Amino acid sequence: MNSDLSSQQVKDIGEQGLLERLQRFCPPEIIGDDAAVLETAPDQSLVVTTDMLIDGVHFSNLTTSPEDAGWRAAAANLSDLAAMGASPLGITVGLGLPSEVRVSWVERLYQGMTECLQKYNTSIVGGDVVRSPVTTLAITAFGQVNPNQIIRRSAAVVGDAIVVTGVHGASRAGLELLLHPQLGQNLNDVEKMALILAHQRPQPRLDVLPILRKILTPNSITDAINRASTPNSRLPIAGMDSSDGLADAIIQICRASGVGAVLEHRQISLPAAFDHWLTQEQALAYALYGGEDFELVLCLTQELASTLVQHLGQGAAIVGNITSGSTVILHDEQKKFPDQVLSLSQGFQHFNS
Amino acid sequence: MNSDLSSQQVKDIGEQGLLERLQRFCPPEIIGDDAAVLETAPDQSLVVTTDMLIDGVHFSNLTTSPEDAGWRAAAANLSDLAAMGASPLGITVGLGLPSEVRVSWVERLYQGMTECLQKYNTSIVGGDVVRSPVTTLAITAFGQVNPNQIIRRSAAVVGDAIVVTGVHGASRAGLELLLHPQLGQNLNDVEKMALILAHQRPQPRLDVLPILRKILTPNSITDAINRASTPNSRLPIAGMDSSDGLADAIIQICRASGVGAVLEHRQISLPAAFDHWLTQEQALAYALYGGEDFELVLCLTQELASTLVQHLGQGAAIVGNITSGSTVILHDEQKKFPDQVLSLSQGFQHFNS
Repeated sequence: MNSDLSSQQVKDIGEQGLLERLQRFCPPEIIGDDAAVLETAPDQSLVVTTDMLIDGVHFSNLTTSPEDAGWRAAAANLSDLAAMGASPLGITVGLGLPSEVRVSWVERLYQGMTECLQKYNTSIVGGDVVRSPVTTLAITAFGQVNPNQIIRRSAAVVGDAIVVTGVHGASRAGLELLLHPQLGQNLNDVEKMALILAHQRPQPRLDVLPILRKILTPNSITDAINRASTPNSRLPIAGMDSSDGLADAIIQICRASGVGAVLEHRQISLPAAFDHWLTQEQALAYALYGGEDFELVLCLTQELASTLVQHLGQGAAIVGNITSGSTVILHDEQKKFPDQVLSLSQGFQHFNS
Repeated sequence: MNSDLSSQQVKDIGEQGLLERLQRFCPPEIIGDDAAVLETAPDQSLVVTTDMLIDGVHFSNLTTSPEDAGWRAAAANLSDLAAMGASPLGITVGLGLPSEVRVSWVERLYQGMTECLQKYNTSIVGGDVVRSPVTTLAITAFGQVNPNQIIRRSAAVVGDAIVVTGVHGASRAGLELLLHPQLGQNLNDVEKMALILAHQRPQPRLDVLPILRKILTPNSITDAINRASTPNSRLPIAGMDSSDGLADAIIQICRASGVGAVLEHRQISLPAAFDHWLTQEQALAYALYGGEDFELVLCLTQELASTLVQHLGQGAAIVGNITSGSTVILHDEQKKFPDQVLSLSQGFQHFNS
């Protein structure tokens, strides 16, 4: 740590440290979720999220085709909208390019983005293209949501069940198979392809939103208002996406809501192929810290949680409960593993490498 | 030009060529204005614009303080909103940074952005910070406008007057004074400072919007519907901002509207200091091609134009008229200069350098 503040560099405080320093330039009510929420009309909020992706840091031609890089970039932003309960309106794409980049590479990147967006009935609505020494992609996604149906990280309450909308660890496993093709000798081709596709073509869970609206009766919304810990949470659901891993999602929700959680080891749903490939420890590490599965992690009453899991089907599960306190504990019913306190120390700090 | 399309590089077709190739990935109704317009409600449209700024291409520590770089980036995006008739809701800021960048530099950049945004009652509502080999700023601004009050490039009709909301050439002159401090010996310090400030702290003309709303009576809107050349234009005003120069703005409006224009040399309002500093040719070149003045260039009926100029005051002027045909002609009443056809060939093609 540098003691002379004026010469402090970004690497001295890391990405997270810098973000904290920059928060004083933003209105306080905006910060702390997957996306910003702006009330544009009494019955409508605008949800906005933005991502910067740098060649060599966030994508690479070595492991990712331009189509897949485009799909993944679009999917990550749509997932942030889904995490807030918002339906997409469109995205803008800012592109910085060295002049030697092939036009066909750029067109394939846009092709991949467009394929993902079309699947979710949305599109690229604007952009900018400039010269840059490094290929850079800046995506901003817009969505809208009824203010009563916003999903916030800060709305979890003690007693809630924690639901995952699908399996975790698949994307990380797919990346390993791409990086080390000699791995996965026990897997058949269909299993391998499914894991690789989970990495290359992740599916933002916008499909969960109409299901949520369907199972939320007027009664459950009244319950929510009665139980809400913050005046902003009007939906009986807290949540975010698991883009940075399942552990990160649960820890972030607990931090924002001022609660703790117990996560049941055996309830975390994993890809079936993990059974005959990975050790339990490896499988768990991929699921908790692998990231980029883009599932939703939702906290809601036990009753709503059961109904939701029934509607979602395969891979969806109740994986734990919200508790008082502030720690997130991984618990093994079978007591094969001792209780563990989960932390973000296995997370990824962009500037500290 | 490379004949093998698959190996064609971005520099072979330039920024504009690439943008044209990428337009097939966007819905056709979205393209061709300063910002995208999305209808989010019957009485409300969302206007979105995005800019990528690269260190060494679009800003430089050599000529621009981080505060000024931040102000200018925010101002350029707010100006795009003003050009569409939209009031700002907020901006998102994506930031790519080498790890050696000073934290204080980043804070000063945000300080400059925030100063500009606060002046126009808006703020940074979200963002992303990532590691990058080159400092990169991606700004997306969004605003809202009643669909009946959108200003489009494509709505100019023959007989319209062309109004500028202020003087042109000041920003470019200020840049010259910064780059070559030995220039401007004939200028006093106040004049110099005014020109330099025009470059460092340009003012997006959001203040023009309430004036437009005030002078537009219900009658003038009915007139507009009757005279509109495109079904989308519901306001009796066409326009854009002059961020890429006055010539560019008029040419772009004419192209989008399928009309021509005559621009009166002597009517183009210039900073008073130009009189005792620049030749007429130089002054005109700065005004037409200098860029970054961020005034609005509006086409409207002669009657509305006169009213608007009276309300705007200093620097505002009727500078020409919309004509049939497709050429933009610079005309000198005093016949000191022969008629010239204006073109974009003096413009800036990012990839062809």
